[in-house]
Amino acid sequence: MQKKAISVKELYATPIEELEKLESVTVQGWIRTNRNSGNVGFIHLHDGTCFKNIQVVYTADSPFFEEVSKYPFGAAVRFDGKVVATPTLQQPFEIQSTSAELLGGVDSDYPLQKKKTSFEFLREEAYLRPRTNTFDAVFRVRSVLAMAVHQFFQDRGFVYVHTPEITGNDAEGAGSVFTITTDSKDNPYTDFYGRRASLTVSGQLHVEAFAMAFKDVYTFGPTFRAEKSNTTRHASEFWMIEPELAFADLDDDMECIEACIKYCIEYILTHCPDEMDFFNKWIDKGVIEKLKKVLASDFRKMEYTEGIEILKKAVAGGHKFQNNNIYWGMDLQSEHERYITEEFVGGPVFLYNYPKEIKAFYMRENDDGKTVAAVDLLVPGEGEIVGGSQREERYDILKTKMDALGNTEGLEWYLNLRKYGGCIHSGFGIGFDRLLMYITGINNIRDTEPYPRTANALKY
Amino acid sequence: MQKKAISVKELYATPIEELEKLESVTVQGWIRTNRNSGNVGFIHLHDGTCFKNIQVVYTADSPFFEEVSKYPFGAAVRFDGKVVATPTLQQPFEIQSTSAELLGGVDSDYPLQKKKTSFEFLREEAYLRPRTNTFDAVFRVRSVLAMAVHQFFQDRGFVYVHTPEITGNDAEGAGSVFTITTDSKDNPYTDFYGRRASLTVSGQLHVEAFAMAFKDVYTFGPTFRAEKSNTTRHASEFWMIEPELAFADLDDDMECIEACIKYCIEYILTHCPDEMDFFNKWIDKGVIEKLKKVLASDFRKMEYTEGIEILKKAVAGGHKFQNNNIYWGMDLQSEHERYITEEFVGGPVFLYNYPKEIKAFYMRENDDGKTVAAVDLLVPGEGEIVGGSQREERYDILKTKMDALGNTEGLEWYLNLRKYGGCIHSGFGIGFDRLLMYITGINNIRDTEPYPRTANALKY
Repeated sequence: MQKKAISVKELYATPIEELEKLESVTVQGWIRTNRNSGNVGFIHLHDGTCFKNIQVVYTADSPFFEEVSKYPFGAAVRFDGKVVATPTLQQPFEIQSTSAELLGGVDSDYPLQKKKTSFEFLREEAYLRPRTNTFDAVFRVRSVLAMAVHQFFQDRGFVYVHTPEITGNDAEGAGSVFTITTDSKDNPYTDFYGRRASLTVSGQLHVEAFAMAFKDVYTFGPTFRAEKSNTTRHASEFWMIEPELAFADLDDDMECIEACIKYCIEYILTHCPDEMDFFNKWIDKGVIEKLKKVLASDFRKMEYTEGIEILKKAVAGGHKFQNNNIYWGMDLQSEHERYITEEFVGGPVFLYNYPKEIKAFYMRENDDGKTVAAVDLLVPGEGEIVGGSQREERYDILKTKMDALGNTEGLEWYLNLRKYGGCIHSGFGIGFDRLLMYITGINNIRDTEPYPRTANALKY
Repeated sequence: MQKKAISVKELYATPIEELEKLESVTVQGWIRTNRNSGNVGFIHLHDGTCFKNIQVVYTADSPFFEEVSKYPFGAAVRFDGKVVATPTLQQPFEIQSTSAELLGGVDSDYPLQKKKTSFEFLREEAYLRPRTNTFDAVFRVRSVLAMAVHQFFQDRGFVYVHTPEITGNDAEGAGSVFTITTDSKDNPYTDFYGRRASLTVSGQLHVEAFAMAFKDVYTFGPTFRAEKSNTTRHASEFWMIEPELAFADLDDDMECIEACIKYCIEYILTHCPDEMDFFNKWIDKGVIEKLKKVLASDFRKMEYTEGIEILKKAVAGGHKFQNNNIYWGMDLQSEHERYITEEFVGGPVFLYNYPKEIKAFYMRENDDGKTVAAVDLLVPGEGEIVGGSQREERYDILKTKMDALGNTEGLEWYLNLRKYGGCIHSGFGIGFDRLLMYITGINNIRDTEPYPRTANALKY
């Protein structure tokens, strides 16, 4: 066994009186800073168990002073020492070292620097960037947020379904997909499965079948898009949360979306206060206030048709959008969504009942014959963050639509769900990486993913 | 909003005295059985929120008797009624219906039958099989087991890392991979990423980099193999759990493996008692006892070399393996592993320090020059269920090995981890679907995955 060390997280969670009673503690981690005045040296040690560092002190009268003073930035080290309260300093205590050990040195070509480096540079060194403050915070929050998602749905009795990554279908009927192949000589595309197979763009259709057995279900896994969108919000591989609720209409859907988003935000504010303080100070001033406002607000509901009227009035009143051509039937752009949520409502808003032409085939047609029971959640500072809908449960209507689109073939099973004990059901999708962007204030999706996958970027 | 219904789970969790006080309850779900004697009818209603059904009674004096008696197997229905205690019957209470509503009927070509159907048949109807008892149990346990995994690691402070599915590497240096393409005319393979890309076979190498920042990390996501192994234990897409622990040697690794497996088993026995009773009765008699034995045992540690001696003695003593050619350096087959854990030890055993020739390049070479610090956990009734190792942290040794294998190119970053504040670290991998097989007693991996992906099987 390796020498038992106390984690920095545990240190900060233990009352100082308890720590001072200990004969000696062992800490291990990586050096974030190492400076000395000739008589006394200070190391900020980071062990990855929490956002905070711990200060280790070494003095000139110790036999290892010379050696430790040479420990480089980034080195893996271990110290034994005594915890001493430091009531006059910023940190509540420090460790006065009694022995030191270098576990792993650092070669001179180490790409990281003590000083702040750009996100662009760090993207090129994706395997090292979790060692920086920003990415330490981002990826810990990513982990905790994933747990929040699971906790929310499991507490509500949702069954987690691992929908497949490899599929013969394409849920949206649109969007570019990656095809997979075994590189065999004869039939590179059909050799393995006996038919062409692609990477999933959504687990929704597959998970709907499970909602017809378990009532409430959710997927949470990777999805793929082969579109070369070089924006700050698109990646070719990202994680999606896709819940599906049986015996639930669009109002039930909105209730669940609101509860889910609030739960996730609350969870992160509670579990990651140091990380959120960091984001609030260095990445996106005001992000905490933004999130707290969401928590405090009742999400407003507004029909798409009313949204269009509001936008028309804004244009008439002199507001300048990049696209000022507002008409019923148009697909809203981010600037329009943000106007509604930021300027008009001043808080989160569910925009619902969209024109059927701009929405997916599986969404339930309303009685007006023009709209479908689709909903987008718009939030200030972002625009759309969740998209959902009540699903078309009427066999004939759905089949007519699918036949017209020519995507019935291969999806007969999906249609059949409407013939075999079907019921009213609804669901939604949350882009997990975008939710993480919203919560942390990080403004490029590449900086929320451990090893981002975008066009022409596959270094690791 | 849809009419507020009480879930079957909630019904069973509420004291009967409380339920009897209610004027009326609403339940909704799917019909599992519907029979009547002319005067009184009984419906077993399943709503997917728990394994149990609820009995709904309808009598001939109600205006809807005729109609309800025709509700078919599988139909989605809603009932209002009064909860009445049934102290003399098997189930503690039933619902005496006061109104009924058919939400979704069932066409006559419904493939499911009231009577038991074969797993092979149900595999062909994967989208419907969660409606059967067995798969209701399997997929609820799958969901709860996934939660157990997250809970275990998050409670221990591990950071969950979404390692990429699309990669330029191949972790094991072996095994067939799926290549991905955009089907573009000019450069179908390199068009998107500027280089060939494949689906991951393991997140280990990627997650090791994060262990050098967060100390303890884990991945839990889909992995892929393009091998056409037509066995009950191989699928082309499956989920893997891959933890990685910094400042941890092989003993630390084994401690974590043992704690993890016991936690998962305990969690399922506690959270899924009805499902486990079902498996114990219908799928694998004795599975609960098997699991409880694992919980009660201290996992034994045994070197590979000792394992070989034991197998040699078994052969000398007349034991017949399919492969009786036992020698130091061989790769053990399942029959050998099972002999050691079932016959010799009679409980879980960590077999460790394997010949380096039969193990992966990243495993740490022991001082004997012949073995590496690899470990497999063997359990009765299964054989290997977890594989792990201490990783080679010494740059020169690792580089020599990788150069010899010719896989250094593209993995320089992985080598670099040894130059930039590296430390002793260890990790392991658990095939999630196989763990689920072990816990449920289900003996075909195709029956543990919502939509299994194997050679020539991609129906959905």
